[in-house]
Amino acid sequence: MARRLTRVVTTPAAARQAHDGSRPFVSLLSDWGARDPSAAICRSVVLGIAPDALIVDITHEVEKYNISHGALMLWCALPFMPIGAHMAVIDPGVGTVRRPVALETTRGDYLVGPDNGLLLPAARRLGGVTRAHLIDNVQYRLPVVSSTFHGRDLFAPAAAHLALGVPLESIGPPLDVGELTDIDWPPVVVRPGELETTVIYRDTFGNLKLAGLTADLLDALDGITHGTQVVVTLTHGGRRRTVPMTWAPTFGEVEGGDHLLYEDSYGRLCIAQNQGNAAQSLGLAEDDVVLVSRLSG
Amino acid sequence: MARRLTRVVTTPAAARQAHDGSRPFVSLLSDWGARDPSAAICRSVVLGIAPDALIVDITHEVEKYNISHGALMLWCALPFMPIGAHMAVIDPGVGTVRRPVALETTRGDYLVGPDNGLLLPAARRLGGVTRAHLIDNVQYRLPVVSSTFHGRDLFAPAAAHLALGVPLESIGPPLDVGELTDIDWPPVVVRPGELETTVIYRDTFGNLKLAGLTADLLDALDGITHGTQVVVTLTHGGRRRTVPMTWAPTFGEVEGGDHLLYEDSYGRLCIAQNQGNAAQSLGLAEDDVVLVSRLSG
Amino acid sequence: MARRLTRVVTTPAAARQAHDGSRPFVSLLSDWGARDPSAAICRSVVLGIAPDALIVDITHEVEKYNISHGALMLWCALPFMPIGAHMAVIDPGVGTVRRPVALETTRGDYLVGPDNGLLLPAARRLGGVTRAHLIDNVQYRLPVVSSTFHGRDLFAPAAAHLALGVPLESIGPPLDVGELTDIDWPPVVVRPGELETTVIYRDTFGNLKLAGLTADLLDALDGITHGTQVVVTLTHGGRRRTVPMTWAPTFGEVEGGDHLLYEDSYGRLCIAQNQGNAAQSLGLAEDDVVLVSRLSG
Repeated sequence: MARRLTRVVTTPAAARQAHDGSRPFVSLLSDWGARDPSAAICRSVVLGIAPDALIVDITHEVEKYNISHGALMLWCALPFMPIGAHMAVIDPGVGTVRRPVALETTRGDYLVGPDNGLLLPAARRLGGVTRAHLIDNVQYRLPVVSSTFHGRDLFAPAAAHLALGVPLESIGPPLDVGELTDIDWPPVVVRPGELETTVIYRDTFGNLKLAGLTADLLDALDGITHGTQVVVTLTHGGRRRTVPMTWAPTFGEVEGGDHLLYEDSYGRLCIAQNQGNAAQSLGLAEDDVVLVSRLSG
Repeated sequence: MARRLTRVVTTPAAARQAHDGSRPFVSLLSDWGARDPSAAICRSVVLGIAPDALIVDITHEVEKYNISHGALMLWCALPFMPIGAHMAVIDPGVGTVRRPVALETTRGDYLVGPDNGLLLPAARRLGGVTRAHLIDNVQYRLPVVSSTFHGRDLFAPAAAHLALGVPLESIGPPLDVGELTDIDWPPVVVRPGELETTVIYRDTFGNLKLAGLTADLLDALDGITHGTQVVVTLTHGGRRRTVPMTWAPTFGEVEGGDHLLYEDSYGRLCIAQNQGNAAQSLGLAEDDVVLVSRLSG
Repeated sequence: MARRLTRVVTTPAAARQAHDGSRPFVSLLSDWGARDPSAAICRSVVLGIAPDALIVDITHEVEKYNISHGALMLWCALPFMPIGAHMAVIDPGVGTVRRPVALETTRGDYLVGPDNGLLLPAARRLGGVTRAHLIDNVQYRLPVVSSTFHGRDLFAPAAAHLALGVPLESIGPPLDVGELTDIDWPPVVVRPGELETTVIYRDTFGNLKLAGLTADLLDALDGITHGTQVVVTLTHGGRRRTVPMTWAPTFGEVEGGDHLLYEDSYGRLCIAQNQGNAAQSLGLAEDDVVLVSRLSG
């Protein structure tokens, strides 16, 4: 029973506080780094088009070319952001045939970026993609389009115009939503008594985010409640070991130095070490597979 | 004659330029890092509640879990910020019994964060804490509160509401100001002819900030004026050495490569190397104790 | 035929989208780093003076003391920013005799910072410097000026006031534009059939920006068109080698792992590796000289 993270997750309650629309909202995400001026240039391009825009940079420190990381960051952040236009650019294929796209979500957002899977998980979390259009109307991009900085020349202008209320269909011709490029997140396998999932992100604290969600754990380990002891089987570099830990609501529920499995603040399963760095202490890295089962006895 | 840095420092003149109140001002500080989306989510939560807020991120790159560093950054920054609501989260105890608090300062600010000492030095620098309240009114937080991201669910909403003018007493019940958790900054010892103090921060240039303030130096070395030669006795890793340097107003007053003791732009004593990195050249680190006396002869 | 990059580059079309002046625009650039609170303090000082200002941080992660890098970042960014006041501080000589200056550009911007060459390349790109004034009017700075943080005390207040419409001549006495300190960028030598230039920046992707512009290449290699094979002779650490590569419009035009010479999105020549890090693969660093000629045969 393998499944992809394609189900629509209900938009968290925070979205009820979404912006009332009196000022356009634009968010930006990329792997350009904080040292180079690329992100600032995109902010400026947005302000040149929409001087009243509220702009929030989600992050520009996504690991270079890591579409999966970028997709996860968007998935985490967008439900807590006002409804708006969200530009995301992790784009190993800039200047090639991959398509520049703008997606509309059920919640009412526009997601703007390359059609390489980056936008889809977040779009599903906002209720799914209602419409997709190619970005190709010269009226809504910078007068000159470079071959290597589509963030500045195509995506930021498109996001700014969409945030201002330009209709999606004016941005370019419609695309088949079903043919958008999807992302290759590792499958989550739910078996009776065992959850098999994969580390997909190590955060800056060394906490390890798994592909599996809390709902997957509850499906696999029927009746599990906070305080239940589980055993996590880790495989890293061909070496297999088991680590007992507690399914706990928060760090402070276990002793300092002890490990825990917990639901992060986005509904995703995570492995952490209280007052420590789980990635280091467990020798776990992204793409490592973990098995979670009950501690027997 | 040991004393803590508990005296009220007069708010610098910059505060006279404080914001006139027509737009709410919110600042944010944390150890979440720029790569993860946590800071952006808090900015968005603030904008969802207070769309007209001016938001300034002080930094999100404070060393993980380092409450002392965070407290110092707040102490440096807040006097130069408009009066507003300032959220600071360095929170090793998230999800445990440490209390989420909102403090009012004499200057009129609200400081919002965990009751672990992080907020107190800055609050004193803004004239002291006039009132303290627990954050627990469900009306002023996100509808669902996670166990691990109180910045998003409790602190950012509280700061946004306070910046909008929600009365402090509406946030939760009052607390005894005298029972707030204080921070454990190292003592400054003033002796006739000698100042004993401790390195508390190494900035990104390698300059070493000391616990002692200029006033402490003037107390210890009576009549010291710019240009006076001092000798600084360093102890690092059990090894003791002395380094002559000048008490100078700025880097350019000593030769390239020479060391100097100077007052940083916040009134704090610092050790630096002109056109160099003092932390590296002196082998000094945080928590190292230094003695400052006049160069005899 | 050596020449400096002193020619006026036409302002890119993006400037047509410049801000209409209804809200003051201020940009900030420095080498202060994101961990220390310096940049946030300057943002706050600007907001204290000009609460309606739109502020964009270009970057605060410029390599410490690297005036050349800062100048390049400004050169890249400013043409895409609204007309406004731009504060830039890379200032190894803070507190010494170097002059704090405010320059007016033909486009209508004000550039504010130390007179050490940092501002001139960007000013030329915005049409050149029309007027230069010393910053010394006490009315437009913070009440107390420290010896070590002129960004906060002099430059940010000057930028904020200029953005608000304070006349340049009110900031301080006029300076001779011809006596402003220039920057020492390496010469670009155009010979028939060969371009000699120098690596001036390694971006966060490992792409190497050269001092030469596309116009220089077209001058040297008459009739070169996209797809032309060139040979690049590299000298690093006294070792000389030749690397064939394609003069290509973008990464995807060459095979993964292959190198290319391309025009970056600012009109500057760059060496890159498709899906790789050219600085690492070629062992090239800043200040290395490269020769570009046609691949013979």
